[in-house]
Amino acid sequence: MSLLVVGSVAFDSVKTPFGEAKEVLGGSATYFSTAASYFTEVKLVAVVGEDFPESHLAFLKEKGVDFEGLERRPGRTFRWRGEYGYQLNEAKTLDTQLNVFESFRPKLPSSYRDAAVVFLANIDPELQLDVLKQVKQPKLVACDTMNFWIGGKRDALIKTLGEVDILIINDGEARELAGEFNLVKVAKKILSFGPKILIIKRGEYGALMFNGQTTFAAPALPLENVFDPTGAGDSFAGGFMGYLSQNGSMNEAALRQAVIYGSVMASFNVEAFSLDRMRTLTREEINARYKEFQSLTFFESA
Amino acid sequence: MSLLVVGSVAFDSVKTPFGEAKEVLGGSATYFSTAASYFTEVKLVAVVGEDFPESHLAFLKEKGVDFEGLERRPGRTFRWRGEYGYQLNEAKTLDTQLNVFESFRPKLPSSYRDAAVVFLANIDPELQLDVLKQVKQPKLVACDTMNFWIGGKRDALIKTLGEVDILIINDGEARELAGEFNLVKVAKKILSFGPKILIIKRGEYGALMFNGQTTFAAPALPLENVFDPTGAGDSFAGGFMGYLSQNGSMNEAALRQAVIYGSVMASFNVEAFSLDRMRTLTREEINARYKEFQSLTFFESA
Repeated sequence: MSLLVVGSVAFDSVKTPFGEAKEVLGGSATYFSTAASYFTEVKLVAVVGEDFPESHLAFLKEKGVDFEGLERRPGRTFRWRGEYGYQLNEAKTLDTQLNVFESFRPKLPSSYRDAAVVFLANIDPELQLDVLKQVKQPKLVACDTMNFWIGGKRDALIKTLGEVDILIINDGEARELAGEFNLVKVAKKILSFGPKILIIKRGEYGALMFNGQTTFAAPALPLENVFDPTGAGDSFAGGFMGYLSQNGSMNEAALRQAVIYGSVMASFNVEAFSLDRMRTLTREEINARYKEFQSLTFFESA
Repeated sequence: MSLLVVGSVAFDSVKTPFGEAKEVLGGSATYFSTAASYFTEVKLVAVVGEDFPESHLAFLKEKGVDFEGLERRPGRTFRWRGEYGYQLNEAKTLDTQLNVFESFRPKLPSSYRDAAVVFLANIDPELQLDVLKQVKQPKLVACDTMNFWIGGKRDALIKTLGEVDILIINDGEARELAGEFNLVKVAKKILSFGPKILIIKRGEYGALMFNGQTTFAAPALPLENVFDPTGAGDSFAGGFMGYLSQNGSMNEAALRQAVIYGSVMASFNVEAFSLDRMRTLTREEINARYKEFQSLTFFESA
C-alpha cells in the first residue's frame, strides 16, 4: 500500500560531543520517507526554498521517494540549529528559521489522494487535519506532534487526534498531552482522545505500544557509538509505517513487528550525522539488525 | 543450592505522593531474602538492635528465611528516612541512622559456610570481601554497591569486584563506577574489573544484562499503580539470584529467565509500602506475571 507523509524538509546544523555538521539534509518528512523507502513506496509532501540543491533531490530519487508533492517556493529552506550534550537525549535548539515553511499550506497532487496509509509528521495540527481531508479514503492514519502544539494549539490537536488511528510521540510529550506522569494512565487518557494505538518513544530506552488492552515493550539497541540522535524519532516512525504499508495487515503481530522495524531504523540513523547512514544502508543490514533485536529480547518460558 | 545474603535489615520511613509509612520493615537483605524465598532456601546475615520486634522475625520465618546469621546487638536498629517525588525514580534521603549497623562485622554461623550462591548486598566493600572469605567454596557470587562506596572506597570496591561473578547496580552507579556515559562502554570497563556479568537496573525502564558478547534487555512492567519503589532493586536481585539458586544452571538461558524473575519480583514489590505485597504474594501470581512479561515482549520473526 502506498504511504503518504507530510512534514518538514530542512537544513540542520547539529553539534554533538562527537562532531559537528553544518546545513546538512534534515527535516521530519525527510527522515521519515528515507526510512520508509526501504519498505514501501513513499509520497512526500513538504516545501523547500530556492536554495535546495539538486543533489538532495537525487538522494530522494535514489531511495525511490515520490517528491511530486515537494513544493519549491521563492525564499530559503527551513533551517534548524541545535546541540546535544553527552547524554544525547534531548537537543537544545539554538536557532529556528521557518523561512518558506512558515506559510506552508500543503496541497496534495491528485496522484497522492488515493494513498492508503498516511503519516502526519510534526507540523501544525490544523495543517495535519487539512492534509488528511485531501486524502480520499485512508486505511490507516498516524501522526506525531510536539510540546509546541500541545501547549499552543491544544484544541486543534485534540481535533486532529479524533481523526487518527495511531499517535507516535515521545514520553515527555505524552505526559504533557495527558497531564499525567504514570504511562499507563497517560495511555488511557490519550486513547480516550481518539487514537486506537499509542506509541511512546523513549529514546535510549526503546518504545512502548499501547493497543487497547495489550502493551508491547521494545528496547532500543544498546549502541557503542551514537553520533547524532537527530531524526531518530522520525526514522522510527518511517520504519514502523513503512513496514505496515508493505505488510498490509495491521493486526497486533504486524504492529509489534513494525515497532521493531522502527527501532531498527532509528538505531541505524543515530550512527551518523544527518541521513548519512541511510546512504549506504541495505535491506540485508536491516534484516540482520531485526535478528539482533530478537536475540536482545528473547527469553524462554518458565 | 542454598543462597546466602549479607546486607542491611532496617526500619524505613518513606513518603511518596501516594502515602506515607513510618518505621516499617526494610533493608537490602530483608527485601532480597524475602523475594528470593519464593525460589530457594535463603540464609540471612545482618544485624538488628534490641528494638527489632518478634513480629518481623515471624515474617521471615514464615517465608522460610534462615536467620541464624541475624545478629541481635545492644542498641537500636538501622533507620532510614526518605521521600520520593511524582517521578518515583530516586529517593531523597532525609535521614540515616546507622545505629548497630555502624560497627557491624558479619560473622557467618558454621552452617552458612557451605553456601553455594552468595549475594553481597550494598554494604562496605571491605565487609563484602570479608564475608566472602568466610564461605568455603561458593559457586556463584554477586554483589551490589552504591555511589557512596564508588566515591569513598573505590580501591576496596575494585578489589571486591575482582572476586565476584556478577555485579548488579543501577545505571547511574554503573556510569559513575566506569567513568563513562555510554552503557556499552560502561559494560566493557566494568567487566574488565573482574565480574563476568554486569546487570544494569534502570528502574521503570527495566534492566540490561551484559554477559561477554551477549546483551539481554528486559523491560519493566508498565504498572498503573506504583506506591513505593523502595527495595525494588533488592527485590530484583532476590528474584534473580533466587531463581539461579533454584535452577542450578547458570547458562545464558537461565540467566535471562532469572532477569525476568527479578523484574517480576521488583514489579510486585513497588505495588505496596515496605514488604507488604510479599505478605500475600503467591508463587502462582509470580508465574502469571512471568507470562505477562512474555506477552509484553514477544514479537514474531521477520
